[in-house]
Amino acid sequence: MTHVFPTRVYYEDTDAGGIVYHAHYLRFAERARNEMLRLAGFPHAAMVAQTGVALTVRHCEIDFRQPARLDDALEVVTRIADIGAATLDIEQDVRRAAGLAWGGVEATTGPAALVRIALRLACINAQGRPVRLPAALRSVLVNVQPAALRSARVNNLSKGQD
Amino acid sequence: MTHVFPTRVYYEDTDAGGIVYHAHYLRFAERARNEMLRLAGFPHAAMVAQTGVALTVRHCEIDFRQPARLDDALEVVTRIADIGAATLDIEQDVRRAAGLAWGGVEATTGPAALVRIALRLACINAQGRPVRLPAALRSVLVNVQPAALRSARVNNLSKGQD
Amino acid sequence: MTHVFPTRVYYEDTDAGGIVYHAHYLRFAERARNEMLRLAGFPHAAMVAQTGVALTVRHCEIDFRQPARLDDALEVVTRIADIGAATLDIEQDVRRAAGLAWGGVEATTGPAALVRIALRLACINAQGRPVRLPAALRSVLVNVQPAALRSARVNNLSKGQD
Amino acid sequence: MTHVFPTRVYYEDTDAGGIVYHAHYLRFAERARNEMLRLAGFPHAAMVAQTGVALTVRHCEIDFRQPARLDDALEVVTRIADIGAATLDIEQDVRRAAGLAWGGVEATTGPAALVRIALRLACINAQGRPVRLPAALRSVLVNVQPAALRSARVNNLSKGQD
Repeated sequence: MTHVFPTRVYYEDTDAGGIVYHAHYLRFAERARNEMLRLAGFPHAAMVAQTGVALTVRHCEIDFRQPARLDDALEVVTRIADIGAATLDIEQDVRRAAGLAWGGVEATTGPAALVRIALRLACINAQGRPVRLPAALRSVLVNVQPAALRSARVNNLSKGQD
Repeated sequence: MTHVFPTRVYYEDTDAGGIVYHAHYLRFAERARNEMLRLAGFPHAAMVAQTGVALTVRHCEIDFRQPARLDDALEVVTRIADIGAATLDIEQDVRRAAGLAWGGVEATTGPAALVRIALRLACINAQGRPVRLPAALRSVLVNVQPAALRSARVNNLSKGQD
Repeated sequence: MTHVFPTRVYYEDTDAGGIVYHAHYLRFAERARNEMLRLAGFPHAAMVAQTGVALTVRHCEIDFRQPARLDDALEVVTRIADIGAATLDIEQDVRRAAGLAWGGVEATTGPAALVRIALRLACINAQGRPVRLPAALRSVLVNVQPAALRSARVNNLSKGQD
Repeated sequence: MTHVFPTRVYYEDTDAGGIVYHAHYLRFAERARNEMLRLAGFPHAAMVAQTGVALTVRHCEIDFRQPARLDDALEVVTRIADIGAATLDIEQDVRRAAGLAWGGVEATTGPAALVRIALRLACINAQGRPVRLPAALRSVLVNVQPAALRSARVNNLSKGQD
């Protein structure tokens, strides 16, 4: 199960090399995660206001394979790779658009990734300290995980492991 | 006649004051102009490749009335105020979304502007020199102008005035 | 009396047109105002923490005259044009560097402006409401204003006008 | 041997969480690499103009340990970890400023890293194809590498390995 978020390359995203500035793929990726959480019922600003916790990026790895250019229609494909007690591992591919509907959820593979991003997000409270994922968020995320991984993780989580 | 472009406020757009960083409204505005031109058949990268000319911002004036915040759904409403020989005057309002369809063209007024932007765009060639608007672009733009202004401007343009 | 802030054009600042993306001159300008206030003893984060008030951009006008390019050494020249009860009018020129010392204060004119920016800043409290400039900040700013203007404004302010 | 580049956190760098937006550490890192190459005699725009080759980011890994905040004085410490035939491996730490001189080169360790970045840069030609590092650039970079690593790599390079 993956989430697909379409976005466009505008001048603001490009640099004098004529391609998307490397750091800006992280902006595309964050937009996609934001919309995936919104679709799951967890708009981030509201989640922070209601639960006092936020998701923050702890670690990321980015593989730049092919550049995107001005006016390219792109898609960010987001997969939840793992759900820990206080962390989320996310994999995101930025690829040229395959013409899918906005905000859709589908299982196909699509075009090759231009940029591949792996992130570990951590759940933190207002003081920046790590805290457990809110139960309501966890239960939604578990439902969008692949089935095999989901059952394994639920066992782990019931034992309090991360 | 106006063009309405929806966009969302993500973390990338905000600053430590908790609101959209002032310069970023210009990014929203450029996205909207890009999509308006695309809808009119002039995607900017293709226009530069085919005609050798580009539109560049020569002057802008921005009135910041109310701040937008994280997760706000916004709309940029774009109006062509005037078409010169080598320039375009554009007015753009950034407002909270009224729930219109993506990329729609409509004539209503909607919510009050959070930010109001007036720009003069100039048409330039590859050397950065001012040149006349491509005829095909002009004819499209004239058609989306208000009728009264359009007739006046056609007269002016026929006399070669700017 | 002017404040001169040097900065450099990096890839992050450019776009696919090979020049500085138009909105980014506002970033350069904000860096310069931040350093001018710091030099005057008012680092912005500390000012917000201590007085509860912040400066926010209410209006700006930008004239783009010549583009800056990758690796250009630039200077932002900042002048305080007017001091109101709750507002500051600032004029800032972005120009190629004339080789002045970092953070210096000097009175010469230097090279022609690439980009000229005029801003009105407003002083606001934590709720975003307009408030009078903190007295300590005002007294510092009055001292860096041109003498003629300064005396005129002091008279006005003593009558409570803005 | 390391290169130390000071920079400051401005509003443009922060987000509504009150801290530096995660992607922007890559901007700080690129500024530092740009200034390190300039100090070595290879301003990037001039290098592209003269040799037709550019350095591009192929891969990066970022570890976010502690957040930086508005008005923080930061340093980016850059080390060349490895020099291949067509690639450079770079390690960069973003840390709070230890008060070193601008653009200085020093060997001390300083405060703990807030953010640690490891990058692989690739040398590409105007068509985006991988090419060998220009000999003049390589000879400069070898001189700023740690001695032990340098001798090993020179042997490797003489055998044409990457």
